[in-house]
Amino acid sequence: MNKAFDSLRVSSSRLRADFDALAQFGATGDGGVHRPTFSEAHLAARAWLREQIEKAGLELRVDSAGNHSAFLNCAIKSPISNPQSLTLLLGSHLDSVPYGGRFDGALGVLAALEVVRTVKEAGVPLTMNLEAIDFTDEEGTLVGFLGSAAVAGRLTAEHLRQPRGGRAALDAGMARAGVTEQGILNAARPARSIAGYLELHIEQGKRLETARTNIGIVSAIVGIASYRLTFVGRADHAGTTSMHDRRDAAQGASAFVVAIRELVIRDFPQCVANVGNITVAPGAFNIVPASVVVSLEFRAPTADEFSRLETALLERAKIEAERFGLGLKVDFLGKHDPTPMSFTAENAFIAACDALRLSHMPLVSGAGHDGQMLVGMCAVGMIFVPSVGGASHSPREFTEWQDCVNGANVLLQAALQLASHAT
Amino acid sequence: MNKAFDSLRVSSSRLRADFDALAQFGATGDGGVHRPTFSEAHLAARAWLREQIEKAGLELRVDSAGNHSAFLNCAIKSPISNPQSLTLLLGSHLDSVPYGGRFDGALGVLAALEVVRTVKEAGVPLTMNLEAIDFTDEEGTLVGFLGSAAVAGRLTAEHLRQPRGGRAALDAGMARAGVTEQGILNAARPARSIAGYLELHIEQGKRLETARTNIGIVSAIVGIASYRLTFVGRADHAGTTSMHDRRDAAQGASAFVVAIRELVIRDFPQCVANVGNITVAPGAFNIVPASVVVSLEFRAPTADEFSRLETALLERAKIEAERFGLGLKVDFLGKHDPTPMSFTAENAFIAACDALRLSHMPLVSGAGHDGQMLVGMCAVGMIFVPSVGGASHSPREFTEWQDCVNGANVLLQAALQLASHAT
Repeated sequence: MNKAFDSLRVSSSRLRADFDALAQFGATGDGGVHRPTFSEAHLAARAWLREQIEKAGLELRVDSAGNHSAFLNCAIKSPISNPQSLTLLLGSHLDSVPYGGRFDGALGVLAALEVVRTVKEAGVPLTMNLEAIDFTDEEGTLVGFLGSAAVAGRLTAEHLRQPRGGRAALDAGMARAGVTEQGILNAARPARSIAGYLELHIEQGKRLETARTNIGIVSAIVGIASYRLTFVGRADHAGTTSMHDRRDAAQGASAFVVAIRELVIRDFPQCVANVGNITVAPGAFNIVPASVVVSLEFRAPTADEFSRLETALLERAKIEAERFGLGLKVDFLGKHDPTPMSFTAENAFIAACDALRLSHMPLVSGAGHDGQMLVGMCAVGMIFVPSVGGASHSPREFTEWQDCVNGANVLLQAALQLASHAT
Repeated sequence: MNKAFDSLRVSSSRLRADFDALAQFGATGDGGVHRPTFSEAHLAARAWLREQIEKAGLELRVDSAGNHSAFLNCAIKSPISNPQSLTLLLGSHLDSVPYGGRFDGALGVLAALEVVRTVKEAGVPLTMNLEAIDFTDEEGTLVGFLGSAAVAGRLTAEHLRQPRGGRAALDAGMARAGVTEQGILNAARPARSIAGYLELHIEQGKRLETARTNIGIVSAIVGIASYRLTFVGRADHAGTTSMHDRRDAAQGASAFVVAIRELVIRDFPQCVANVGNITVAPGAFNIVPASVVVSLEFRAPTADEFSRLETALLERAKIEAERFGLGLKVDFLGKHDPTPMSFTAENAFIAACDALRLSHMPLVSGAGHDGQMLVGMCAVGMIFVPSVGGASHSPREFTEWQDCVNGANVLLQAALQLASHAT
């Protein structure tokens, strides 16, 4: 590492001014922002970002998936140290969930921009290009991880046929943004062009706050799977059928909901499971439920836990169905496997925290992030800063400003370690 | 009792022919009938009933609420024995729930008609008028207990303003049937004109089948109450919020559903409770449920149990809400108090069963019936015959024919006891 730049820091006031300016785009008046992908507010925020990039004297790049970048060419053009002109990406996303918070995504993009500005101004001799990127549609109001999956060459026309936000919304959004389906599918970059991807994000939970720790160094992004479970009983007159004679689908479903919470807490302390919806048929006061559909989602940090948790949850559904004389229909809806982060990136973050005298702890990310799409293509690393009260995807979302600055400085020092050489 | 008529029996074959003929109106092809109040099928069934009444030489009466009757004047016009020319009603209803069975209601109307026919043919000297009645809209596709409540003078314009089937359906039905709102409100009979009301019905449960008993003598119609309970938690990210940090409304609601089944079985063996619907908000796979609305209905045979059960259920909801850090909103939706049957009627049924050498047992009716509306106005009694497998409100509804005939003969003998004198 270049010792000469160990004391380099981002400008807290400049970053803060950017942060406050960006929070005006889509502001909802309660401290939050409503900036879904390709909405007018999102497009206005990106227009503002383009101005900031140009004002900083950085190269503005917008790819055919709409990803926006501030690009800084490497200073050291050595065929030995960087034969392929590698790029180190830093970034996050400017889109928000509907009626979300100001920090999620926005902090990571602005910190990345501030890091690149700081490096440019200091004239650090880089051995890689440095690029601050704002990925398109991380939150998935249209597709989910749209920009990062496009860059990684993981998107096909099939993914865009029935996206989670509906095809009509995607078409309307693309038209507003001046992006085309073919452009999105053509945005893939060469596999060996990217050396790594580093992202600063808010934790969205309260583990850092509880542990009074400055920085969370992400060790993995959880695997996530979803199922639709249907407990099948029999409709009966709720007045004339004794409690013992019922095959009440709501009993099996409810016992399952209660049991899996206990099961996860007891046997899978690193995991979570959620029943986000319950639908009863026929749904009348005076009819014993004939069927109950349960929306199950669960997440685990490692492949082993992911697989064991899946087995335990499905086994529990079977047991509760049998206990109440019910049938069980299991529909698998989809999954993403757990994604470990790069050791190289983790070590760079640890060294940066230590140098900055910031406390740190390894954390698993319970939410998905763009980095998942880039794993396999380059070294991916993430850090978290504390979320007050753990609030997320809400106007209540908040992180103390000093924590935001700490995160940006860790990102800066880790980037310097990966993208510069001792001269 | 008039010993000369102890051996009088209904005609099984004539009753069977009527039963099979009636089952053609609204037949659904799977053994069931679809005959909602004032539907074309229901009106056709009533036209057929009018023909049978006239064919039997009985007086046809149709009141302004659409109730259809076969009327037989008392033979003994004594100012001492029957100064007010009292009438003993026997009956049930021809309307069905949507896609229901052939027995519910239909058996009771046809058995009542057969009893009156049999009494007329035998020339039994009655001290009361005898009237076989088909009440309008017992099942409540429009209002519920419409005809019996009208006869009892319990209906007001308020009840008809927003009926459970919707006002538009009521208007359309009244127009088809030639009935008016004012007619329904004017159908009340003088309080002292009716001596009693006796009804034969299928059990709609399997207690008689299990106990291998011929006749259930109803001791009470259960009280019924309904509540809407809302468990209020907090929406959180289902990936980043640990299991311990959640206020998951689905946990409280599910624990309640499981707990009340155990509570009723353990502490209220004569009662039932049902959660017929569960609605989760916001209802997404990846959001911890912020609120869950539970549709609760419960029934009890006595005022004491009704009150204790209500207290126990609401207390349990509070406990489960508190256990998971949730709020609880309790909305009372309505109730009917438990209705004891008349001892006079019960005793007449017991004597009739004993004379006919039929086994009998007291039963509580878990379903509501027209008799509830007439309690307070006259002596009300009901008997049940076994339902195979307990099926109810379903095409699977079935009662062995001999059980139907047994029920009709018990109805005949009990009516004779109440409406005739030893000469």
